[in-house]
Order: sequence, then C-alpha cells, then structure tokens
Amino acid sequence: MTRHEPTAIVLLSGGLDSSTCMGIAADEGFEIIALSFDYGQRHRCELEASRRLVRHYRARRHMICELGLFRELGGSALTDDGIPVPVADSVAQIGEGIPTTYVPARNLVFLSYAVGLAEVEGASTIFIGVNAVDYSGYPDCRPEFIQAFAEAAGLAIKAGVEGRGPSLRTPLIDLSKAEIIAKGRALGVPYELTHSCYHPREDGTACGRCDSCLLRRKGFADAGLCDPIPYASSAA
Amino acid sequence: MTRHEPTAIVLLSGGLDSSTCMGIAADEGFEIIALSFDYGQRHRCELEASRRLVRHYRARRHMICELGLFRELGGSALTDDGIPVPVADSVAQIGEGIPTTYVPARNLVFLSYAVGLAEVEGASTIFIGVNAVDYSGYPDCRPEFIQAFAEAAGLAIKAGVEGRGPSLRTPLIDLSKAEIIAKGRALGVPYELTHSCYHPREDGTACGRCDSCLLRRKGFADAGLCDPIPYASSAA
Repeated sequence: MTRHEPTAIVLLSGGLDSSTCMGIAADEGFEIIALSFDYGQRHRCELEASRRLVRHYRARRHMICELGLFRELGGSALTDDGIPVPVADSVAQIGEGIPTTYVPARNLVFLSYAVGLAEVEGASTIFIGVNAVDYSGYPDCRPEFIQAFAEAAGLAIKAGVEGRGPSLRTPLIDLSKAEIIAKGRALGVPYELTHSCYHPREDGTACGRCDSCLLRRKGFADAGLCDPIPYASSAA
Repeated sequence: MTRHEPTAIVLLSGGLDSSTCMGIAADEGFEIIALSFDYGQRHRCELEASRRLVRHYRARRHMICELGLFRELGGSALTDDGIPVPVADSVAQIGEGIPTTYVPARNLVFLSYAVGLAEVEGASTIFIGVNAVDYSGYPDCRPEFIQAFAEAAGLAIKAGVEGRGPSLRTPLIDLSKAEIIAKGRALGVPYELTHSCYHPREDGTACGRCDSCLLRRKGFADAGLCDPIPYASSAA
C-alpha cells in the first residue's frame, strides 16, 4: 500500500491536552498512530477516552502499552493507593512545587516508547501535549527537558544516525489552558469525549476538585467556553 | 533501617558486560539493585543468568520488568522470529553497519526505567555496561548518546531538579572486550554464571557463532584467558 501522508505518533492520554494535539496532527494532514499507556493509573477511564478519540479521528493504529513499572515503583498519588490525590476549591489553592501526583520518569519512559514506535513505523513526527504554563509543576513537562530528550533520542536510534529521526513536536508548550481550549475548539476537537480527572467517581464522573479538574475548569472559564463534561462537585 | 552504603541501580542482562559492571559496583561498595528486562528476547536464558548473578552478589532487590513493547514492535532479529540471527565464523566476518540484532530504542527505554527506579529508591548511581569498542554497532551504546541521555534524565526527574539526580556510570565504555574480561577476572566476576549468546540451543548452550558469542570468545582469547562456558560450535 502506498501512503501519501506522513505518519505521526501522538501520545494520547485521553485528556484535554493530548486530544488537542491529536486534533492539531489531524488538521495538519498526518496519518495518526496513537500511543497510550495503561500504567496502573487510578484514573484508568482516561484509557476509555483515548479509545473514543481514536475512533473519532480514525487513527491508523492505537497501541496501548501495559506498564507495570509505575505501579510497582509507587511514589505517586496517581499510582499508589496509599497516597491521596490532593484536592482544592480553586486553582489558587493548588500547592506550590512538584505535587504528589508526579510520577517518576513518566514522560521519559513514554517518549522512549514513542521513539521506538516511530522508528519501526517510519513516523516523521512525535506529538506530545506537554504544557509549561497552566501545568502541575512536573519537571518532565518543561521545554528544557523536551529539548534535551530530543537530542538524546536522535542519537539513540538508527533513523537518527541516518539523519531521518522523528522530530518531536510540542504545539501546546507555550499556551495557557484557555488558549489550548480555544485552539482545540476552533479545530473541532470533541472535548465531550475527553477525560482529565485524576480522581473520578466509580461511574467515571470527574471530581471537579483535583489539580487536573481545576486547571481544566479554569481554562474553559477563561476561554469563555462551556466545558461539555459533567462534574461531581460544582466548586471551581 | 539505616543504610550506610550508597545504592546503585545496575542494568543487568546477565551477559558478560553487565556482569562486569555488577562486579565493579560491588567492588566499590555499593548496595545493589539489579534491573533486568523480559522483552521477548529469544535468548531469555540470559534472565536465568541474571538471577544467578543477583544471588552471587546478594543484591538488595532484583526488578525484572516485562516489556511487551519490543516484541510487539518487531523489527529486530532478537525479538522477531521472522528475522534470523546473523552468524559467522569469526569476528572479522561480522557485517558492517548496524546489524539486524539492533532493537529500536532499547537502551533509551531501559535507561528511562532505571532513572525512575533510581528516583524512587534514592539511588545515587546507575551502572550500564555499554561499550563502544568491541561492540555490535548499536547507536545507543555510543558515549554521545549516553551523555545526551544523562542530561535529559537530569531534567526529567524531581531528584534532578533538586540537584541530587543519579549519576550515570559507564565503566566499560572505552575498554576492549579483552580489557573488560581482564578487569572482571581481577574482581572475581563469576563468568561461568553469565550468558551472552543471541541464539542459544534449547538447553541454553551458546551457539558460538552469533556476533555476541564471537566477540566474547575473541575477548577471552585476546585476554589469554579461558572462557568457562561451553559452546555448541568450536568455530571462533
């Protein structure tokens, strides 16, 4: 089969940022391979969201990698049942510094997988929805990490040695949450299919009070748009 | 429990190089956490070798991570049954360039796991037995990759941001295979417990003719030492 479109790997959690990345890659005409991870995260309903988005965007392939590592390592509120997910009533109340939801080396591992997949699939581009403005303070979302990783990845793989390694795109890195949402809305990203909450109820309803919910709700409010998903709590 | 010794993560395949690294880490007084991977490699008896070495060195912990990724990706003679492992009669016959035993992004993924484990365990050091002299031409064994990766890793993790990220040690990188073996022998590394062959017989006996066997045998010969493991073929 001859392919006419360049292929992109999109790291897809199923949340707001990665879904917007997917919309951007689709808008630019890439054939999409989505890469998601089942790493023992509490909020595994985000994997369901990723499947909905893959169907919506008719991605060529959806690879969901099981990663026992992070659950085994522990040390994060997202994977360790002994550490509570922090909640607050507003973005202003979110604690300073690196929060307990930080997962050690998560983006390092995720991106390493993406690089392997890109090499095997001959993808020209990797999209990751990291954001260094309205973010949770994770070190592996900062541009200096992304840049250093891209350099290391280029040296790690055969395609890189041959001068045709994938480029690493972070289209959201300098945008506020409100700008991300406005951009995604303009591209028709189906935010009603996404899931952002770290601490959902049994039925998958977003809590409305974890860092991720608070940042999302403030983003929609700042953008003057209505968030299409329901919340368990009305605080924001 | 108070710990008096610094902790090191040792990437341990069970082969000659990683075992020598283990010996070096032990000799320097590190408390050892061994990290091995079950990535669908044909030569899975190397995992048995890693277990023998962990017992020998009384490592504090042995983490064996299952990685379905590489088998699923394919594209390597080590993980894809459709690609034969190349064999030859001597090191001089080993093909030029990157061989088919190359596994896309392998060390990138392995090291990313090591960084996560180091952060959670508070390890000060990561040892990896990469070697850029008598090696198989893999891009992710070169010093420029290791250096770039170390930089990216320092930026990825909380410990790195706080100035106490693990250092990445590659004590074998500039040594010939003969020098590695001489060093290991001087440290008492039990080479009889190791496994290097990419293409072992059912009973685990090394083939003697894959790149890995050829480099190992030549290394022992050049060092003027006897390789304590048996081979199926006497060619070397």
